[in-house]
Amino acid sequence: MEDEVIANNKQVILKDYVKGFPQESDLPLVSSTVKLKIPGDCHDAVLVRNLYLSCDPYMRNLMNKIESDDPNLYSPGSPIRGYGVSRVVDSSHSSFKEGDLIWGLTGWEEYSLIRNPSSSFKIPDTSVPLSYYTGILGMPGMTAYAGFYEICSPRKGEYVFISAASGAVGQLVGQFAKLLGCYVVGSAGSKDKIELLKNKFGFDDAFNYKEEKDLNAALKRQVFTFIFVLPEIDSFKYFPEGIDIYFENVGGKMLDAVLLNMRLHGRIAVCGMISQYNLDRPEGVHNLFTLVSKRIRMQGFVVVDYYHLYHKYLDMILPLIKEGKITYVEDIAQGLESGPRALVGLFSGRNVGKQVVALARDDDV
Amino acid sequence: MEDEVIANNKQVILKDYVKGFPQESDLPLVSSTVKLKIPGDCHDAVLVRNLYLSCDPYMRNLMNKIESDDPNLYSPGSPIRGYGVSRVVDSSHSSFKEGDLIWGLTGWEEYSLIRNPSSSFKIPDTSVPLSYYTGILGMPGMTAYAGFYEICSPRKGEYVFISAASGAVGQLVGQFAKLLGCYVVGSAGSKDKIELLKNKFGFDDAFNYKEEKDLNAALKRQVFTFIFVLPEIDSFKYFPEGIDIYFENVGGKMLDAVLLNMRLHGRIAVCGMISQYNLDRPEGVHNLFTLVSKRIRMQGFVVVDYYHLYHKYLDMILPLIKEGKITYVEDIAQGLESGPRALVGLFSGRNVGKQVVALARDDDV
Repeated sequence: MEDEVIANNKQVILKDYVKGFPQESDLPLVSSTVKLKIPGDCHDAVLVRNLYLSCDPYMRNLMNKIESDDPNLYSPGSPIRGYGVSRVVDSSHSSFKEGDLIWGLTGWEEYSLIRNPSSSFKIPDTSVPLSYYTGILGMPGMTAYAGFYEICSPRKGEYVFISAASGAVGQLVGQFAKLLGCYVVGSAGSKDKIELLKNKFGFDDAFNYKEEKDLNAALKRQVFTFIFVLPEIDSFKYFPEGIDIYFENVGGKMLDAVLLNMRLHGRIAVCGMISQYNLDRPEGVHNLFTLVSKRIRMQGFVVVDYYHLYHKYLDMILPLIKEGKITYVEDIAQGLESGPRALVGLFSGRNVGKQVVALARDDDV
Repeated sequence: MEDEVIANNKQVILKDYVKGFPQESDLPLVSSTVKLKIPGDCHDAVLVRNLYLSCDPYMRNLMNKIESDDPNLYSPGSPIRGYGVSRVVDSSHSSFKEGDLIWGLTGWEEYSLIRNPSSSFKIPDTSVPLSYYTGILGMPGMTAYAGFYEICSPRKGEYVFISAASGAVGQLVGQFAKLLGCYVVGSAGSKDKIELLKNKFGFDDAFNYKEEKDLNAALKRQVFTFIFVLPEIDSFKYFPEGIDIYFENVGGKMLDAVLLNMRLHGRIAVCGMISQYNLDRPEGVHNLFTLVSKRIRMQGFVVVDYYHLYHKYLDMILPLIKEGKITYVEDIAQGLESGPRALVGLFSGRNVGKQVVALARDDDV
């Protein structure tokens, strides 16, 4: 490759710090150019062409104007960053070479210079869709794996509830719990998602939280026995006996209702609180005293603490995918131009399954 | 003893279910009589004379009118119950005999028939004040022990914060943490209590939450270097670097402020939430997202789950008491008549140290 190869490089930038719900207009597309060669003084870096970008709820929190020295926060005028799947175009890092496929943090742009690819992973298996490395085989997959197996201490037969259950993480937690022999119910925000949970992901049941006036009552929903049907159908519905494990993705009112329905020694893995990210002040949660009366462990976690388990996870998950025992639903938006709409759509629940933005052309992959 | 010995038996009864702050008038004293012999059909029971009664915040929650089959809830017209130290007057239980001193759940009355003394403990050592078995050697002591060592996973050098720190449990948690080599700060509600924390219990520092307009700022309080004093005094104040362990006794606004000041991988042992017990609806806690960002484990517990450790605890604590390495402050009200005032006083913080009601006369003990 010549030193002088210059490519166009469309970018999605943060226009200004965001308050409230993010809008597409907060994330304009700009044109720039990039030299397709790592600068000579830039050691241990990779230059990549981005193929798939991942839309994840945590990205909203990086758009805030807050006092912090967190280098992950977005800066107005600069491209936003997130997880993605990329092909290495040039490398000054001994672990990566031109042509390698990797996943990890990158920019929302066509080409990115990744100055510190220490958290990038080489893609080990290309017999599955590459986009899976933004989801089931990437950060959300590891989040589901660590959150469920490391935080929830799950046991066969336990009662498991998952909010935002059809999302990138929830759909996997539910399937992991079913594989272990748990009773699994999820909540989501549309009829289509509820169908997906029950029919595609094999949840025992699911409900649309938007149609429930009383979330406490919804969680308690009862047993119905249809005695005029032979054989009798005993339909066990939701949690009249309480919840052993709650996988928390939403926060706020749902958390408050769940707290009233936990069983003794229950566990709450706090993965995220998407319902709270666009509020000036998070909602108050009132029922925390049940942590005492029910002896509940509520534990927050962040996936980066568990990346040392990635290869262990792959050993588990790749065969399950190939044997068809785990399925994964993606919602793929085409082109970087569609990225802003896809990303802000997370916060109104527009996506069905894992939201991905595809930049790849057929000849890239 | 003759079958026909009848004694007067003053009792403190619940007048009616309580809403809001309990008043002395909710807990009237009534006269009754008791036969000092266990009824013939009452097996595995003990009849006791109560010597010390324990005032504990959890008792407030038993005064509520709530839908529950919990047999511990108080009934209007009947004596309230709580922990106490008692002498066995008659026994039909093979583990107890007349004259034994025991501690465990009993009634707020002079004599109680304990139909199921399975959670009563024989008092193993009378070389310490008997009243200690309502506190440091009883339920609150075990609460501090289990909460700190079993729930908090403490390590030497960690930063520990305790609310209601001069109370029955808090004063012990602080001393345990100091013995382990932690930096320990407590909050309480009066100047006297703050002095006690710093001078009697050896906390590194303490503050009066009632004098703080901004609890978040109070917890962050900074480092002051007095450079004109030789040697230089570097006064490290509270938690500019954050809190590793929070021992939660109060809930509400204090919890919200603590959540903003936790360190990565911090632990919150939720022992109680006394500030919330008299509210129709508990206050909302807004800052739970820090559970995720700081990877915090927040865990509720109830002491009865840890009573199997009681003798292990005694092996630790009795020598510490006798060597003067642990101290314990009690606030002893004299006479059953003073019980209602002592109990309701917990909720305005009137007590200084463990609140006890003494029924014993000199010739009893």
